[in-house]
Amino acid sequence: MVVIGAGFAGLSATRHLRDQPVTVTIVDHHNFHTFQPLLYQVATAGLDPADVAYPVRTIFGREPNVVFRHGRALSVDVDTRQVGLADGTALDYDRLVVATGATTGFFSVPGAPQHALPLYTLADARRLRNNVLGCLETADAHPEDFDGGAPTFVVVGGGASGVEMSGALLELLDVSVRRDRLRIDPERSKVVLLEAGDRLLPGFKHEAGRYAEETLRSRGVVVRLRTPVAEVTGEGVRLGDGTWLRAAAVIWAGGVTVDGTLAASLPTAHGRGGRVTLEPDLSLADHPEVFVVGDAGAVPWGPARPEACPQVAQVAIQSGRHAALQIARQLQGRPTTPFNYHDKGLMATIGRHAAVAQLRRGPILRGTLGWLAWLGLHLVYLVGFRNRVVVLVNWWWRYLDWPSGPRLIVADVDAEP
Amino acid sequence: MVVIGAGFAGLSATRHLRDQPVTVTIVDHHNFHTFQPLLYQVATAGLDPADVAYPVRTIFGREPNVVFRHGRALSVDVDTRQVGLADGTALDYDRLVVATGATTGFFSVPGAPQHALPLYTLADARRLRNNVLGCLETADAHPEDFDGGAPTFVVVGGGASGVEMSGALLELLDVSVRRDRLRIDPERSKVVLLEAGDRLLPGFKHEAGRYAEETLRSRGVVVRLRTPVAEVTGEGVRLGDGTWLRAAAVIWAGGVTVDGTLAASLPTAHGRGGRVTLEPDLSLADHPEVFVVGDAGAVPWGPARPEACPQVAQVAIQSGRHAALQIARQLQGRPTTPFNYHDKGLMATIGRHAAVAQLRRGPILRGTLGWLAWLGLHLVYLVGFRNRVVVLVNWWWRYLDWPSGPRLIVADVDAEP
Repeated sequence: MVVIGAGFAGLSATRHLRDQPVTVTIVDHHNFHTFQPLLYQVATAGLDPADVAYPVRTIFGREPNVVFRHGRALSVDVDTRQVGLADGTALDYDRLVVATGATTGFFSVPGAPQHALPLYTLADARRLRNNVLGCLETADAHPEDFDGGAPTFVVVGGGASGVEMSGALLELLDVSVRRDRLRIDPERSKVVLLEAGDRLLPGFKHEAGRYAEETLRSRGVVVRLRTPVAEVTGEGVRLGDGTWLRAAAVIWAGGVTVDGTLAASLPTAHGRGGRVTLEPDLSLADHPEVFVVGDAGAVPWGPARPEACPQVAQVAIQSGRHAALQIARQLQGRPTTPFNYHDKGLMATIGRHAAVAQLRRGPILRGTLGWLAWLGLHLVYLVGFRNRVVVLVNWWWRYLDWPSGPRLIVADVDAEP
Repeated sequence: MVVIGAGFAGLSATRHLRDQPVTVTIVDHHNFHTFQPLLYQVATAGLDPADVAYPVRTIFGREPNVVFRHGRALSVDVDTRQVGLADGTALDYDRLVVATGATTGFFSVPGAPQHALPLYTLADARRLRNNVLGCLETADAHPEDFDGGAPTFVVVGGGASGVEMSGALLELLDVSVRRDRLRIDPERSKVVLLEAGDRLLPGFKHEAGRYAEETLRSRGVVVRLRTPVAEVTGEGVRLGDGTWLRAAAVIWAGGVTVDGTLAASLPTAHGRGGRVTLEPDLSLADHPEVFVVGDAGAVPWGPARPEACPQVAQVAIQSGRHAALQIARQLQGRPTTPFNYHDKGLMATIGRHAAVAQLRRGPILRGTLGWLAWLGLHLVYLVGFRNRVVVLVNWWWRYLDWPSGPRLIVADVDAEP
């Protein structure tokens, strides 16, 4: 059988199939798994790309029934039961788990795909880092190139990614001025967080959104609610009310979509954002041998609550596991069971000593306590012991405020003069 | 005053000027220093790029009289005493240290600049890694794409870089088959090391060259001496005797040149490989305010031995220090002194438990002892404590043969199908 995608959902499905009497071929066009919740730290030079990426072959190195195939899956033919790869070959499957995730959603905002910098893949994070650090170096040498004498960074979207990114950007600015002695006036360099709705962290409780807003403001982020973006250009953004905001870089944390991906092309119904409509057991209607899990699927909360779960790591992990267990049941000739999401809570970090952790019940943890909870949870979930050690070393350094951190501008090809 | 270049020579000069009553502007087009002796480990996925790179601003974070300028120096005007940068600005200097290093020398071999993969910069190392790991994945999925059913890697040049690269490539092949379970026949996949001369490690004693040759051969590298390369194509290499050798990748460890760099354009005499001819104190003739250090200069061994030192890290470090001390003497109105190279020895590693360390006197260390000496020395010289810890962790892992290592294929932009 075949699993497409080595994100949280695909890994989870594959892991829970390793003791089954099947050979699992896991396909991904990257040879590594990306720990997406920490990409914003790669983008802001707190962590290195290798700290949040782990080779798929290493993850399953001791599982004889798991085979990795490096390649891009382009299509699924549910009639002939084949996955078409970009290199022209086809993989036959008897059972299939589609865990292809989502892609950055620019929601038809003109100029956004061309000029805004997304943060969904490791390549995105590296590009963002090179771009932001490059801006800071240019501001050091040529402050006259910037409106107001210093760069403004605009972050679009007030969800968890946008909140985390703006908090981390502010810390990067601070460390650049204080430790790296970049000649940038911290009073003039701004981080602006734009949110179309009337609150931050819309998936969280109101209290968490207010805490994030207050903390970001107190640290110096300009938070603008009810401020939709109408257009993005190389110079900045045009807001919904027609005014222009100049920006050295526009960072897009505006959400994701499944449209345009392999999952969106499956011959079945699709819900909001292209998410694949699923049966209660997460299989496709009329195709009990095909499961769709993670961000790509409109994963229902449970039998009593058919609406789709949010596109977060917990849902991906749990839905991947569920699909694996259903395949095991099918192999044993037993009927499948419906998926039931166990919401363990939500977390977002705002910076050093500040995070919100909204558990299923009980009070919202915030401040240092929330931050420690966030830190612990992310360490536990980081794949691979090696990565855990390195990330811990990096964080420890950062916590002690040592003047380190991989603030490197490394491009594939050196820019020519 | 201005230092151009943040390699070993430029860093060394800047460090020894930090207590002087001058402001030093250090210019580099990378915002980081690269620890070049370990680049081959980045290329073979033993270390991560950030393990061997360190931000220049962090290195001089506590030196108030050192200013970093991110930019590419294009020209030096010794009459107006200005350094021209790629962004159109000019930096005035009263004293100048040129430490611009060298660049890969392809020595007029047709096709080499287009098809061979050099290993001189961090970007080179990343590209090589992506290329080699990509070849191995292709070989797993499509063995029929390769002559003999498995990829052959050709390394050109039997100096320290070529020896280290071929040894490390063989270890990568081994770990790929044994740990990552890539379906590649280790008997068919080859590493071929080509050397035009009649021995390996030409700068070392004969005994060291023979040890490297025997050890590489016993581990499976095909060592071919007296085998010059006449041409490189996308398919492989044409040898001096007209025969063709097919290769999945051609790695160029054939040497370096100063030709085509800023140093080569200085209005002065140039020696072999474009190296700048220098006065005994390492200044330019008629320009006692300009020093050239490191790979860019034809640094003399000493007053009694005017021939040029080899282009190695030790010479760069010592010549950079010497230039700084001469500038200090000039500031005090004292005459300058000639440079005198203290040869501490040479080292090259061949793989796990095998290296040669040729000290100034005494026997050549080899095997595990040589490897430990090599390991210790490189750790001591690695800039920055953080890097030392991470590199130590990585090496320790490798030593214990754990199935880890950053075998990631990370490109700036995801390849399209």
